[in-house]
Amino acid sequence: MRGLLLVLEGGEGVGKTTQWERLAEALQASGRDVVALREPGGTEPGTRIRELLLDPEISLAPATEALLFAASRAELLARAVRPALERGALVLLDRFLLSTYVYQGRARGLDVQALRRVNALATGGLVPDYTLLLSLPLEEARQRARARLLPDRLEREAEAFHERVAAGFAEASTIAWQGAHPECGPIVAIDATGNRDAVTARCIEALRHRWPELLPASGGIMHHTS
Amino acid sequence: MRGLLLVLEGGEGVGKTTQWERLAEALQASGRDVVALREPGGTEPGTRIRELLLDPEISLAPATEALLFAASRAELLARAVRPALERGALVLLDRFLLSTYVYQGRARGLDVQALRRVNALATGGLVPDYTLLLSLPLEEARQRARARLLPDRLEREAEAFHERVAAGFAEASTIAWQGAHPECGPIVAIDATGNRDAVTARCIEALRHRWPELLPASGGIMHHTS
Repeated sequence: MRGLLLVLEGGEGVGKTTQWERLAEALQASGRDVVALREPGGTEPGTRIRELLLDPEISLAPATEALLFAASRAELLARAVRPALERGALVLLDRFLLSTYVYQGRARGLDVQALRRVNALATGGLVPDYTLLLSLPLEEARQRARARLLPDRLEREAEAFHERVAAGFAEASTIAWQGAHPECGPIVAIDATGNRDAVTARCIEALRHRWPELLPASGGIMHHTS
Repeated sequence: MRGLLLVLEGGEGVGKTTQWERLAEALQASGRDVVALREPGGTEPGTRIRELLLDPEISLAPATEALLFAASRAELLARAVRPALERGALVLLDRFLLSTYVYQGRARGLDVQALRRVNALATGGLVPDYTLLLSLPLEEARQRARARLLPDRLEREAEAFHERVAAGFAEASTIAWQGAHPECGPIVAIDATGNRDAVTARCIEALRHRWPELLPASGGIMHHTS
Protein backbone atom coordinates (compact mmCIF):
# COMPACT_ATOMS: atom_id res chain seq x y z
CA MET A 1 0.00 0.00 0.00
CA ARG A 2 1.18 3.51 -0.81
CA GLY A 3 0.70 5.81 2.14
CA LEU A 4 -1.14 9.11 2.37
CA LEU A 5 0.21 12.63 2.04
CA LEU A 6 -1.72 15.10 4.19
CA VAL A 7 -0.79 18.79 4.30
CA LEU A 8 -1.63 21.51 6.80
CA GLU A 9 -1.65 25.06 5.43
CA GLY A 10 -2.49 28.58 6.55
CA GLY A 11 -1.01 32.02 7.24
CA GLU A 12 0.93 33.17 10.31
CA GLY A 13 -1.07 33.02 13.54
CA VAL A 14 -3.78 30.54 12.49
CA GLY A 15 -2.44 27.82 14.85
CA LYS A 16 -1.08 25.60 12.10
CA THR A 17 1.95 24.22 13.91
CA THR A 18 -0.06 23.47 17.05
CA GLN A 19 -2.65 21.58 15.01
CA TRP A 20 0.09 19.77 13.08
CA GLU A 21 1.50 18.43 16.38
CA ARG A 22 -1.95 17.49 17.74
CA LEU A 23 -3.07 15.78 14.53
CA ALA A 24 0.15 13.78 14.36
CA GLU A 25 -0.48 12.67 17.94
CA ALA A 26 -4.10 11.73 17.25
CA LEU A 27 -3.19 9.75 14.13
CA GLN A 28 -0.37 7.99 15.97
CA ALA A 29 -2.69 7.16 18.88
CA SER A 30 -4.97 5.39 16.40
CA GLY A 31 -2.08 3.02 15.60
CA ARG A 32 -0.95 4.56 12.30
CA ASP A 33 2.65 4.87 11.10
CA VAL A 34 2.79 8.68 11.08
CA VAL A 35 5.67 10.84 9.86
CA ALA A 36 5.24 14.52 10.73
CA LEU A 37 7.52 16.88 8.78
CA ARG A 38 7.68 20.58 8.20
CA GLU A 39 8.78 22.93 5.44
CA PRO A 40 11.29 24.34 5.13
CA GLY A 41 13.45 21.82 7.00
CA GLY A 42 13.06 18.18 7.97
CA THR A 43 16.51 17.12 6.69
CA GLU A 44 20.05 18.23 7.58
CA PRO A 45 20.44 20.38 4.41
CA GLY A 46 16.80 21.49 4.80
CA THR A 47 17.47 22.74 8.32
CA ARG A 48 20.37 24.83 7.07
CA ILE A 49 18.20 26.20 4.26
CA ARG A 50 15.47 26.97 6.84
CA GLU A 51 17.92 28.97 8.97
CA LEU A 52 18.84 31.05 5.94
CA LEU A 53 15.19 31.57 4.87
CA LEU A 54 13.98 32.67 8.29
CA ASP A 55 17.05 34.69 9.36
CA PRO A 56 15.79 38.21 10.16
CA GLU A 57 19.27 39.64 9.41
CA ILE A 58 19.23 38.42 5.79
CA SER A 59 17.62 40.01 2.74
CA LEU A 60 16.74 37.69 -0.17
CA ALA A 61 15.58 38.46 -3.71
CA PRO A 62 12.10 36.94 -4.32
CA ALA A 63 13.47 34.41 -6.86
CA THR A 64 16.18 33.33 -4.41
CA GLU A 65 13.58 32.79 -1.71
CA ALA A 66 11.39 30.70 -4.04
CA LEU A 67 14.36 28.58 -5.17
CA LEU A 68 15.53 27.97 -1.59
CA PHE A 69 12.05 26.78 -0.56
CA ALA A 70 12.04 24.48 -3.61
CA ALA A 71 15.51 23.13 -2.70
CA SER A 72 14.40 22.31 0.83
CA ARG A 73 11.28 20.67 -0.63
CA ALA A 74 13.29 18.56 -3.10
CA GLU A 75 15.49 17.24 -0.30
CA LEU A 76 12.55 16.56 2.04
CA LEU A 77 10.68 14.65 -0.64
CA ALA A 78 13.67 12.60 -1.78
CA ARG A 79 14.96 11.71 1.68
CA ALA A 80 11.90 11.59 3.92
CA VAL A 81 8.47 11.89 2.29
CA ARG A 82 8.83 9.42 -0.59
CA PRO A 83 10.50 6.67 1.49
CA ALA A 84 7.74 7.03 4.13
CA LEU A 85 4.93 6.91 1.55
CA GLU A 86 6.53 3.87 -0.08
CA ARG A 87 6.41 1.91 3.17
CA GLY A 88 2.73 2.88 3.57
CA ALA A 89 3.09 5.62 6.20
CA LEU A 90 0.85 8.61 6.63
CA VAL A 91 2.91 11.76 6.09
CA LEU A 92 1.66 14.95 7.72
CA LEU A 93 3.36 18.02 6.25
CA ASP A 94 3.39 21.48 7.82
CA ARG A 95 3.23 23.53 4.55
CA PHE A 96 3.82 22.45 0.94
CA LEU A 97 3.37 23.77 -2.61
CA LEU A 98 0.29 25.87 -1.78
CA SER A 99 2.40 28.04 0.55
CA THR A 100 4.78 28.72 -2.35
CA TYR A 101 1.94 29.89 -4.57
CA VAL A 102 0.53 32.09 -1.83
CA TYR A 103 3.73 33.54 -0.32
CA GLN A 104 6.11 33.74 -3.28
CA GLY A 105 3.36 34.05 -5.94
CA ARG A 106 0.47 36.07 -4.54
CA ALA A 107 2.37 38.01 -1.85
CA ARG A 108 5.82 38.50 -3.50
CA GLY A 109 4.44 38.81 -7.03
CA LEU A 110 6.39 36.02 -8.76
CA ASP A 111 4.71 34.41 -11.77
CA VAL A 112 2.79 31.29 -10.69
CA GLN A 113 3.68 29.50 -13.94
CA ALA A 114 7.39 30.03 -13.19
CA LEU A 115 6.88 28.73 -9.64
CA ARG A 116 5.04 25.69 -11.00
CA ARG A 117 7.96 24.89 -13.32
CA VAL A 118 10.55 25.29 -10.58
CA ASN A 119 8.59 23.11 -8.20
CA ALA A 120 8.02 20.37 -10.76
CA LEU A 121 11.70 19.51 -10.28
CA ALA A 122 11.29 19.55 -6.49
CA THR A 123 8.11 17.45 -6.26
CA GLY A 124 8.63 15.14 -9.23
CA GLY A 125 4.84 15.28 -9.69
CA LEU A 126 3.86 14.16 -6.17
CA VAL A 127 0.37 15.52 -5.37
CA PRO A 128 -0.99 15.74 -1.78
CA ASP A 129 -3.97 13.49 -1.06
CA TYR A 130 -5.61 16.19 1.02
CA THR A 131 -4.81 19.65 2.35
CA LEU A 132 -6.42 21.11 5.46
CA LEU A 133 -6.32 24.89 5.14
CA LEU A 134 -6.73 26.58 8.54
CA SER A 135 -8.73 29.78 8.13
CA LEU A 136 -9.09 32.63 10.58
CA PRO A 137 -10.27 36.24 10.15
CA LEU A 138 -7.15 38.25 9.28
CA GLU A 139 -7.32 40.55 12.32
CA GLU A 140 -7.51 37.59 14.72
CA ALA A 141 -4.55 35.86 13.03
CA ARG A 142 -2.48 39.05 13.08
CA GLN A 143 -3.14 39.57 16.81
CA ARG A 144 -1.92 36.06 17.54
CA ALA A 145 1.12 36.40 15.25
CA ARG A 146 2.10 39.78 16.69
CA ALA A 147 2.16 38.24 20.18
CA ARG A 148 5.21 36.16 19.22
CA LEU A 149 8.42 37.10 21.00
CA LEU A 150 10.87 36.29 18.19
CA PRO A 151 9.24 36.88 14.81
CA ASP A 152 11.22 35.40 11.88
CA ARG A 153 12.02 37.08 8.52
CA LEU A 154 8.62 36.27 6.99
CA GLU A 155 6.64 37.10 10.12
CA ARG A 156 8.30 40.55 10.16
CA GLU A 157 6.89 41.47 6.75
CA ALA A 158 4.57 44.48 6.49
CA GLU A 159 0.83 44.10 7.14
CA ALA A 160 0.12 44.49 3.39
CA PHE A 161 2.16 41.32 2.80
CA HIS A 162 0.06 39.34 5.30
CA GLU A 163 -3.13 40.72 3.73
CA ARG A 164 -2.01 39.35 0.34
CA VAL A 165 -1.21 36.01 2.00
CA ALA A 166 -4.68 35.88 3.55
CA ALA A 167 -6.29 36.75 0.20
CA GLY A 168 -4.21 34.05 -1.51
CA PHE A 169 -5.29 31.36 0.95
CA ALA A 170 -8.92 32.48 0.63
CA GLU A 171 -8.72 32.04 -3.16
CA ALA A 172 -7.15 28.60 -2.77
CA SER A 173 -10.17 27.35 -0.87
CA THR A 174 -12.36 27.85 -3.96
CA ILE A 175 -13.15 25.05 -6.43
CA ALA A 176 -12.14 27.30 -9.35
CA TRP A 177 -8.63 27.82 -7.96
CA GLN A 178 -8.19 24.13 -7.19
CA GLY A 179 -9.31 23.20 -10.71
CA ALA A 180 -6.60 25.46 -12.15
CA HIS A 181 -3.91 24.06 -9.78
CA PRO A 182 -4.35 20.26 -9.85
CA GLU A 183 -0.77 19.79 -8.58
CA CYS A 184 -1.96 21.04 -5.17
CA GLY A 185 -4.61 18.31 -4.86
CA PRO A 186 -7.94 18.78 -3.03
CA ILE A 187 -8.02 21.52 -0.37
CA VAL A 188 -10.60 21.99 2.36
CA ALA A 189 -10.88 25.12 4.49
CA ILE A 190 -11.10 24.47 8.23
CA ASP A 191 -12.58 27.07 10.56
CA ALA A 192 -9.70 27.86 12.93
CA THR A 193 -11.64 30.09 15.35
CA GLY A 194 -12.25 28.97 18.92
CA ASN A 195 -10.05 26.89 21.21
CA ARG A 196 -7.52 24.41 19.91
CA ASP A 197 -9.54 21.32 20.91
CA ALA A 198 -12.41 22.54 18.77
CA VAL A 199 -10.08 23.15 15.80
CA THR A 200 -8.47 19.71 16.15
CA ALA A 201 -11.95 18.14 16.25
CA ARG A 202 -12.84 19.94 12.99
CA CYS A 203 -9.65 18.71 11.32
CA ILE A 204 -10.36 15.12 12.39
CA GLU A 205 -13.94 15.40 11.23
CA ALA A 206 -12.72 16.52 7.79
CA LEU A 207 -10.31 13.58 7.59
CA ARG A 208 -13.01 11.11 8.72
CA HIS A 209 -15.41 12.49 6.18
CA ARG A 210 -12.89 11.64 3.44
CA TRP A 211 -11.52 8.40 4.93
CA PRO A 212 -14.07 6.91 7.36
CA GLU A 213 -11.57 4.22 8.44
CA LEU A 214 -8.65 6.57 9.06
CA LEU A 215 -9.43 7.47 12.67
CA PRO A 216 -11.71 5.57 15.10
CA ALA A 217 -14.52 7.63 16.60
CA SER A 218 -12.77 7.65 20.02
CA GLY A 219 -9.75 9.24 18.47
CA GLY A 220 -7.54 9.70 21.55
CA ILE A 221 -7.44 13.46 21.47
CA MET A 222 -10.31 14.66 23.62
CA HIS A 223 -8.27 14.29 26.82
CA HIS A 224 -6.39 17.44 25.75
CA THR A 225 -7.79 20.63 27.20
CA SER A 226 -6.65 24.07 26.27
CA MET B 1 25.83 51.66 -22.13
CA ARG B 2 24.97 48.22 -20.86
CA GLY B 3 28.08 46.33 -19.72
CA LEU B 4 29.38 42.97 -20.82
CA LEU B 5 28.82 39.58 -19.20
CA LEU B 6 31.82 37.28 -19.71
CA VAL B 7 31.86 33.75 -18.28
CA LEU B 8 34.73 31.37 -17.62
CA GLU B 9 33.83 27.68 -17.66
CA GLY B 10 35.52 24.29 -17.42
CA GLY B 11 35.84 21.13 -15.31
CA GLU B 12 37.91 20.66 -12.13
CA GLY B 13 41.65 21.10 -12.66
CA VAL B 14 41.60 23.12 -15.88
CA GLY B 15 42.90 26.25 -14.12
CA LYS B 16 39.64 28.18 -14.36
CA THR B 17 39.87 30.09 -11.10
CA THR B 18 43.50 31.09 -11.75
CA GLN B 19 42.56 32.42 -15.19
CA TRP B 20 39.50 34.17 -13.78
CA GLU B 21 41.76 36.12 -11.37
CA ARG B 22 44.34 36.89 -14.08
CA LEU B 23 41.77 38.01 -16.64
CA ALA B 24 40.07 40.27 -14.09
CA GLU B 25 43.46 41.83 -13.38
CA ALA B 26 44.28 42.29 -17.08
CA LEU B 27 40.90 43.87 -17.80
CA GLN B 28 41.19 46.13 -14.78
CA ALA B 29 44.73 47.16 -15.82
CA SER B 30 43.28 48.32 -19.13
CA GLY B 31 41.13 50.81 -17.21
CA ARG B 32 37.82 48.93 -17.30
CA ASP B 33 35.26 48.81 -14.49
CA VAL B 34 35.53 45.05 -13.81
CA VAL B 35 33.42 43.03 -11.39
CA ALA B 36 34.73 39.49 -10.87
CA LEU B 37 32.22 37.11 -9.26
CA ARG B 38 31.98 33.38 -8.81
CA GLU B 39 29.25 30.79 -8.55
CA PRO B 40 28.04 29.60 -6.19
CA GLY B 41 28.62 32.54 -3.88
CA GLY B 42 29.29 36.24 -4.38
CA THR B 43 26.60 37.43 -1.94
CA GLU B 44 26.01 36.82 1.77
CA PRO B 45 23.18 34.26 1.16
CA GLY B 46 25.17 32.88 -1.79
CA THR B 47 28.20 32.25 0.42
CA ARG B 48 26.04 30.27 2.86
CA ILE B 49 24.55 28.30 -0.05
CA ARG B 50 28.08 27.68 -1.35
CA GLU B 51 29.18 26.26 2.03
CA LEU B 52 26.25 23.84 1.93
CA LEU B 53 26.88 22.83 -1.71
CA LEU B 54 30.58 22.14 -1.26
CA ASP B 55 30.44 20.60 2.26
CA PRO B 56 32.03 17.12 1.95
CA GLU B 57 30.01 15.94 5.00
CA ILE B 58 26.66 16.61 3.31
CA SER B 59 24.73 14.44 0.86
CA LEU B 60 22.26 16.20 -1.45
CA ALA B 61 19.62 14.81 -3.81
CA PRO B 62 20.38 15.87 -7.43
CA ALA B 63 17.28 18.11 -7.59
CA THR B 64 18.26 19.81 -4.31
CA GLU B 65 21.74 20.48 -5.65
CA ALA B 66 20.34 21.99 -8.88
CA LEU B 67 17.87 24.20 -6.98
CA LEU B 68 20.55 25.45 -4.57
CA PHE B 69 22.83 26.43 -7.46
CA ALA B 70 19.86 28.23 -9.04
CA ALA B 71 19.10 30.03 -5.74
CA SER B 72 22.68 31.25 -5.45
CA ARG B 73 22.52 32.36 -9.09
CA ALA B 74 19.25 34.27 -8.59
CA GLU B 75 20.74 36.19 -5.67
CA LEU B 76 24.01 36.92 -7.47
CA LEU B 77 22.19 38.22 -10.54
CA ALA B 78 19.71 40.36 -8.62
CA ARG B 79 22.21 41.88 -6.18
CA ALA B 80 25.52 42.02 -8.05
CA VAL B 81 25.50 41.16 -11.77
CA ARG B 82 22.51 43.20 -12.97
CA PRO B 83 23.44 46.38 -11.03
CA ALA B 84 27.01 46.13 -12.40
CA LEU B 85 25.85 45.61 -16.01
CA GLU B 86 23.44 48.52 -15.67
CA ARG B 87 26.23 50.92 -14.73
CA GLY B 88 28.22 49.64 -17.75
CA ALA B 89 30.72 47.38 -15.98
CA LEU B 90 32.34 44.28 -17.38
CA VAL B 91 31.26 41.31 -15.26
CA LEU B 92 33.55 38.29 -15.25
CA LEU B 93 31.79 35.22 -13.85
CA ASP B 94 33.52 32.04 -12.68
CA ARG B 95 30.84 29.52 -13.84
CA PHE B 96 27.22 30.12 -14.93
CA LEU B 97 24.35 28.26 -16.58
CA LEU B 98 26.58 26.00 -18.69
CA SER B 99 28.00 24.41 -15.53
CA THR B 100 24.44 23.54 -14.45
CA TYR B 101 23.73 21.79 -17.74
CA VAL B 102 27.01 19.88 -17.58
CA TYR B 103 27.18 19.00 -13.84
CA GLN B 104 23.52 18.60 -12.88
CA GLY B 105 22.30 17.62 -16.37
CA ARG B 106 24.95 15.55 -18.12
CA ALA B 107 26.78 14.23 -15.03
CA ARG B 108 23.89 13.86 -12.52
CA GLY B 109 21.31 12.88 -15.14
CA LEU B 110 18.68 15.58 -14.50
CA ASP B 111 16.51 16.55 -17.46
CA VAL B 112 17.99 19.60 -19.23
CA GLN B 113 14.53 20.95 -20.02
CA ALA B 114 13.69 20.90 -16.30
CA LEU B 115 16.99 22.66 -15.51
CA ARG B 116 16.25 25.27 -18.17
CA ARG B 117 12.85 25.99 -16.60
CA VAL B 118 14.27 26.26 -13.10
CA ASN B 119 17.04 28.57 -14.22
CA ALA B 120 14.72 30.83 -16.18
CA LEU B 121 13.51 32.09 -12.77
CA ALA B 122 17.12 32.58 -11.62
CA THR B 123 18.46 34.38 -14.71
CA GLY B 124 15.34 36.26 -15.79
CA GLY B 125 16.54 35.69 -19.37
CA LEU B 126 20.01 37.23 -18.99
CA VAL B 127 22.34 35.68 -21.62
CA PRO B 128 26.16 35.86 -21.36
CA ASP B 129 27.85 37.89 -24.09
CA TYR B 130 30.69 35.37 -24.35
CA THR B 131 31.87 32.24 -22.56
CA LEU B 132 35.49 31.10 -22.54
CA LEU B 133 35.51 27.33 -22.01
CA LEU B 134 38.91 26.14 -20.76
CA SER B 135 39.67 22.73 -22.24
CA LEU B 136 42.31 20.26 -21.14
CA PRO B 137 42.76 16.53 -21.85
CA LEU B 138 40.84 14.72 -19.08
CA GLU B 139 43.88 12.90 -17.65
CA GLU B 140 45.85 16.13 -17.30
CA ALA B 141 42.91 17.89 -15.58
CA ARG B 142 42.40 14.94 -13.20
CA GLN B 143 46.06 14.92 -12.20
CA ARG B 144 45.89 18.60 -11.34
CA ALA B 145 42.58 18.23 -9.48
CA ARG B 146 43.79 15.21 -7.49
CA ALA B 147 46.78 17.24 -6.28
CA ARG B 148 44.44 19.44 -4.19
CA LEU B 149 44.78 19.08 -0.45
CA LEU B 150 41.15 19.71 0.51
CA PRO B 151 38.84 18.48 -2.25
CA ASP B 152 35.22 19.69 -1.89
CA ARG B 153 32.03 17.63 -2.26
CA LEU B 154 31.98 17.88 -6.07
CA GLU B 155 35.71 17.31 -6.48
CA ARG B 156 35.37 14.08 -4.44
CA GLU B 157 32.96 12.54 -6.96
CA ALA B 158 33.98 9.31 -8.70
CA GLU B 159 36.10 9.41 -11.86
CA ALA B 160 33.06 8.42 -13.98
CA PHE B 161 31.38 11.64 -12.85
CA HIS B 162 34.32 13.74 -14.03
CA GLU B 163 34.36 11.86 -17.33
CA ARG B 164 30.72 12.81 -17.90
CA VAL B 165 31.57 16.43 -16.99
CA ALA B 166 34.41 16.45 -19.54
CA ALA B 167 32.14 14.95 -22.21
CA GLY B 168 29.48 17.55 -21.43
CA PHE B 169 31.89 20.46 -21.82
CA ALA B 170 33.23 18.95 -25.06
CA GLU B 171 29.68 18.84 -26.46
CA ALA B 172 29.05 22.44 -25.39
CA SER B 173 31.93 23.65 -27.56
CA THR B 174 30.11 22.48 -30.72
CA ILE B 175 27.94 24.81 -32.82
CA ALA B 176 25.09 22.26 -32.76
CA TRP B 177 24.91 22.29 -28.96
CA GLN B 178 25.09 26.08 -28.81
CA GLY B 179 22.30 26.37 -31.37
CA ALA B 180 20.08 24.20 -29.17
CA HIS B 181 20.96 26.19 -26.01
CA PRO B 182 20.71 29.87 -26.99
CA GLU B 183 20.31 30.87 -23.33
CA CYS B 184 24.02 30.03 -22.83
CA GLY B 185 25.15 32.51 -25.50
CA PRO B 186 28.24 32.01 -27.70
CA ILE B 187 30.93 29.69 -26.29
CA VAL B 188 34.54 29.38 -27.44
CA ALA B 189 36.86 26.57 -26.36
CA ILE B 190 40.27 27.75 -25.14
CA ASP B 191 43.26 25.39 -25.15
CA ALA B 192 44.25 25.22 -21.46
CA THR B 193 47.46 23.20 -21.89
CA GLY B 194 50.83 24.75 -21.14
CA ASN B 195 51.77 27.37 -18.56
CA ARG B 196 49.28 29.86 -17.18
CA ASP B 197 50.74 32.85 -19.05
CA ALA B 198 50.14 31.05 -22.33
CA VAL B 199 46.54 30.26 -21.34
CA THR B 200 45.87 33.85 -20.26
CA ALA B 201 47.28 35.07 -23.58
CA ARG B 202 44.88 32.73 -25.45
CA CYS B 203 41.91 34.02 -23.43
CA ILE B 204 42.85 37.62 -24.17
CA GLU B 205 43.34 36.83 -27.85
CA ALA B 206 39.82 35.35 -27.97
CA LEU B 207 38.36 38.45 -26.30
CA ARG B 208 40.29 40.79 -28.65
CA HIS B 209 39.12 38.81 -31.64
CA ARG B 210 35.52 39.49 -30.61
CA TRP B 211 35.98 43.03 -29.25
CA PRO B 212 39.09 44.61 -30.78
CA GLU B 213 38.79 47.65 -28.48
CA LEU B 214 38.34 45.72 -25.25
CA LEU B 215 42.02 45.28 -24.37
CA PRO B 216 44.97 47.29 -25.68
CA ALA B 217 47.71 45.19 -27.31
CA SER B 218 50.06 45.86 -24.35
CA GLY B 219 47.54 44.34 -22.00
CA GLY B 220 49.42 44.58 -18.70
CA ILE B 221 49.64 40.87 -18.04
CA MET B 222 52.90 39.71 -19.54
CA HIS B 223 54.88 40.79 -16.47
CA HIS B 224 53.46 37.70 -14.74
CA THR B 225 55.67 34.65 -14.91
CA SER B 226 54.67 31.22 -13.77
